[in-house]
Amino acid sequence: MKISRKIDQAAKEDRVWWSFEYFPPRTAQGLQNLLDRIERMRALGPEFIDITWNAGGRTSELTSELVKTCQKLIGIETCMHLTCTGMPKEKVDTALREAKQHGCRNVLALRGDPPVGKEWEAVEGGFSYGVDLVRHIRTEYGDYFDVAVAGYPQTQNLPPEEAAREMEYLKGKVDAGATFIFTQMFYDIEMFIAWVKAARAAGITVPIVPGIMPIQTWNGFQKATSLAKITVPQFFLDELEPHKNNDEKVREIGIRLVATLCRQILSADIGIKGLHFYTMNLEKGCRMLLEELNLVPRVDVVKPLPWRQSLTPNRRTENIRPIFWANRTRSYLSRTENWDEYPNGRFGDSRSPAYGELDGYGIWIKQSKEDGLKLWDTPTTIEEIRGLFSKFCFGKLAALPWSDTAPSSETTVIAQQLAKLNELGFLTINSQPAVDGARSDDRVHGWGPSNGYVYQKAYLEFFVSPELLELLIPHIERDINITYYVINHRGDLRTNTHSDGPNAVTWGVFPGKEIVQPTIVEAISFMAWKDEAYELGRQWATFYEPESPSRKLIDDIMNTYSLVNVVHNDFKKADAIFQPFYKAGAEYAAKHAALNGAAN
Amino acid sequence: MKISRKIDQAAKEDRVWWSFEYFPPRTAQGLQNLLDRIERMRALGPEFIDITWNAGGRTSELTSELVKTCQKLIGIETCMHLTCTGMPKEKVDTALREAKQHGCRNVLALRGDPPVGKEWEAVEGGFSYGVDLVRHIRTEYGDYFDVAVAGYPQTQNLPPEEAAREMEYLKGKVDAGATFIFTQMFYDIEMFIAWVKAARAAGITVPIVPGIMPIQTWNGFQKATSLAKITVPQFFLDELEPHKNNDEKVREIGIRLVATLCRQILSADIGIKGLHFYTMNLEKGCRMLLEELNLVPRVDVVKPLPWRQSLTPNRRTENIRPIFWANRTRSYLSRTENWDEYPNGRFGDSRSPAYGELDGYGIWIKQSKEDGLKLWDTPTTIEEIRGLFSKFCFGKLAALPWSDTAPSSETTVIAQQLAKLNELGFLTINSQPAVDGARSDDRVHGWGPSNGYVYQKAYLEFFVSPELLELLIPHIERDINITYYVINHRGDLRTNTHSDGPNAVTWGVFPGKEIVQPTIVEAISFMAWKDEAYELGRQWATFYEPESPSRKLIDDIMNTYSLVNVVHNDFKKADAIFQPFYKAGAEYAAKHAALNGAAN
Repeated sequence: MKISRKIDQAAKEDRVWWSFEYFPPRTAQGLQNLLDRIERMRALGPEFIDITWNAGGRTSELTSELVKTCQKLIGIETCMHLTCTGMPKEKVDTALREAKQHGCRNVLALRGDPPVGKEWEAVEGGFSYGVDLVRHIRTEYGDYFDVAVAGYPQTQNLPPEEAAREMEYLKGKVDAGATFIFTQMFYDIEMFIAWVKAARAAGITVPIVPGIMPIQTWNGFQKATSLAKITVPQFFLDELEPHKNNDEKVREIGIRLVATLCRQILSADIGIKGLHFYTMNLEKGCRMLLEELNLVPRVDVVKPLPWRQSLTPNRRTENIRPIFWANRTRSYLSRTENWDEYPNGRFGDSRSPAYGELDGYGIWIKQSKEDGLKLWDTPTTIEEIRGLFSKFCFGKLAALPWSDTAPSSETTVIAQQLAKLNELGFLTINSQPAVDGARSDDRVHGWGPSNGYVYQKAYLEFFVSPELLELLIPHIERDINITYYVINHRGDLRTNTHSDGPNAVTWGVFPGKEIVQPTIVEAISFMAWKDEAYELGRQWATFYEPESPSRKLIDDIMNTYSLVNVVHNDFKKADAIFQPFYKAGAEYAAKHAALNGAAN
Repeated sequence: MKISRKIDQAAKEDRVWWSFEYFPPRTAQGLQNLLDRIERMRALGPEFIDITWNAGGRTSELTSELVKTCQKLIGIETCMHLTCTGMPKEKVDTALREAKQHGCRNVLALRGDPPVGKEWEAVEGGFSYGVDLVRHIRTEYGDYFDVAVAGYPQTQNLPPEEAAREMEYLKGKVDAGATFIFTQMFYDIEMFIAWVKAARAAGITVPIVPGIMPIQTWNGFQKATSLAKITVPQFFLDELEPHKNNDEKVREIGIRLVATLCRQILSADIGIKGLHFYTMNLEKGCRMLLEELNLVPRVDVVKPLPWRQSLTPNRRTENIRPIFWANRTRSYLSRTENWDEYPNGRFGDSRSPAYGELDGYGIWIKQSKEDGLKLWDTPTTIEEIRGLFSKFCFGKLAALPWSDTAPSSETTVIAQQLAKLNELGFLTINSQPAVDGARSDDRVHGWGPSNGYVYQKAYLEFFVSPELLELLIPHIERDINITYYVINHRGDLRTNTHSDGPNAVTWGVFPGKEIVQPTIVEAISFMAWKDEAYELGRQWATFYEPESPSRKLIDDIMNTYSLVNVVHNDFKKADAIFQPFYKAGAEYAAKHAALNGAAN
């Protein structure tokens, strides 16, 4: 979505918003860390993020790559910087074409800094000024992109005529088609307010988004402000300098100073409701600053849906998925990549669900053999396997072959029950608790726009032995509210559902909207998921030597156990789904105790 | 839907079902009465109905017409009888073609009785036996229709070889493609069971549906049984005859006798779970019989959706409509008749909503001038108009120009509040109370399959004067959960909704299914409805002489009042929608009291 639309929307709703800026890191490990951080910082509720361009360095393609990952996997609206520095027209066009492919609708057009130690120089066939880049984007892409430009409130030491000329340049960029302005960092509120008023007086009417640089360390602060010749009010220095050798203290004072600056901006009656934070790829400073400002993320920014939505062009309207890949989003994205249309509103209305083959990207157990052995050791009995699953439920094991990450906060609500099930022999690989109309801003279960209510039917998915399954089914069938699918590795399906269609297991009701039902259970996708679920177990088995006890044990489970999913359709009875399992488990235990007794 | 599918489904769910047979009446008034009765008897939960064919009489086209009305307007699955008597092939084909057009999937193929006092004779180019008709339907229509045939359990007085020949005929009809069998009436359970067993022994495996004739009067009973030479057990006569001059008593005893027969059929272990009632177009006998049998209608048969679904072929999947036509179904059906596709799951996904023009069928006030004057008299003040609206809310006025029928049982839940609103000057023409998860079998609010939950957002639609509207809007806007649309007769629209899409105001959550959201509020259909709402008022005005006070009053309302719809999006706060109205009404009253005081 275009940032200008987001700004409009926030203005209509009269609310403060914020955004984060990141730069491409220099190493592969740095890249992974940054992506993890962007994903975590999403929970701080930025309306969008932007990624700087570093054409001079080794990292130019990295910007495109980062934009792609943020749009597609992290599902956060991203603005791409683009500079004239060292960029022939073809490179500019490649960058724009790729941005469009990834669903990015926002570009910040900059002249860019010269390479370190050199004068700025246009490359052959390139652009000389930001305004040329703006014009080029408008010519080539019409209205497709929001084009942002940079504004420089640092006017303190400029002669008036030069400041006026700068303002004319800015007006020129806006007239050429820029839709909003990001400003350079500043700490002097008077200067900033004066500059905004001058811009308005010059006929610049597009939104102005102030760039806020948190103060993270004394050295960093000094370097950044002196490099860009930023005016720093004396009281900043007076407060900070005494603690310049104490980073913690500098950050603490800095947070307070910058928070005051932010409050002054927001209350200055200059129509500004948004703050753009230069994160410097750091998390803590931003987090503390937002806390100091009491800026609480809106759930619908952090979680517009209960799962992470892809923002690539063809998937943007997708708002319903099978529950089976809940812990394997990448795999789902990959296996459905070639769908012509993504379901919106109902599952299976508009396309025949053809899932990609297992040899596609992502159908691999995430852990290396080394990591896997470290995590799961060498289990040789079914009890040890149950123990691993049970530990995972309690958050004492970081991953299972079926879950890359620890249980979500909403699963921990039922951690006790899940652990018990695993101890009884039901090896759970996916689940969700029942939710009967939690508010959409609920910390654990909430998602979607404010003032709504969200719901879930309780769901369980697990591997189970044939013997225990046969004890379980009669108990399940006694509860008319339970529907189930049982499948084995050969694909034999068994169910008590009468209808062919999907079962909505997560839905939300919001003011002024149709009902949203983002998660469903249904047969065809379960068949496709089944192959993957068994394959992940088989891959785990290969971590152990052929003929080794662990290899045999896990292979045996994959060859004989059924994969089962169970929905309790009465979402007002939170604990009812577990009852049949307890009963079947008790019967199983009694039977085996009797057998053991007889054998003794 | 094919009846055989319904029978299968009921068998799977192991439940008893029933159906009603009607015959085309001879007069126009009789026709209207029958349609009203079919609609009322729908509440008794018949799985389907069937309509006899009367080719010899004046009523042959009437069967087609009745099938059409039942499928399209009443929305009940209908089986059409078709006979060979007096039917050249072309007439048969016309009847079948029309049945298909109306979405009818079920035909009972009969030889038919000869015209009274004559021998049976095939017409030229017609069919001679039921089996010929079955073959013809299969040849011409393949699997499109379920074809039922008649079975005759009345074998008591037949020589064995003749009974065997009859069974062979029946087997022949089934082999020719019949999918199930309706039997003739009978009262002798032993004979019936023997006959069913003989049919099974003869290799007839299709479902057998016993025809049940309630005993309504002594004469009727005598006539029907003697005409068809039906064996009546002696104890029937012993019990009934002493009361033959007391219809009430005969019906009472008859109910008991026939109920016992039904229980014997259902418990006879011959695989029969359905009962087909020959209603003779009478209501009471059937109703009492079902009560005696404790057969309670399933809500999802009586109300699969909160509004009456059309069962014509192209509308069958339609499951979402705007709320505005809630009291004018015929008009909605007519105005959307030419849509290529009907929305299913979401509103506006698959078609651009183009509503037919106001000159189409149904955009007329239902009452004649005479009836209208009787109902609404000649109001000359706005207070009298408010009084009419208020009376209607309490069920003390049978209709308003905007509502053909008295308020529904669910509206009466909020009758007090609605009446108060009308007294305050908000002329309500449509509304629904908030419902927060009523069970789907709830007597007042329930609809859809069992074990589900249904929900509603509170809704109000009304005409209001400009002055009162301006007092109302600030109060409405103070509640963040209220969304509204205001429009005037010129079409100027005003709203506080931020989203363009529809607002779901009725939805249901059911085991194993996607969320169903059958009723929505949205702008485009409201614009289309607006023309109709104002037109109905204008037509009412024409009941009065030009220049008369009533004419001027109503015209004035239609020319100056706005039409407003209001949704309270928090369905957990049942009464919240009314608060802004009370406040605005009080302000209005205070203001006018002050004005009057100043004037005095």
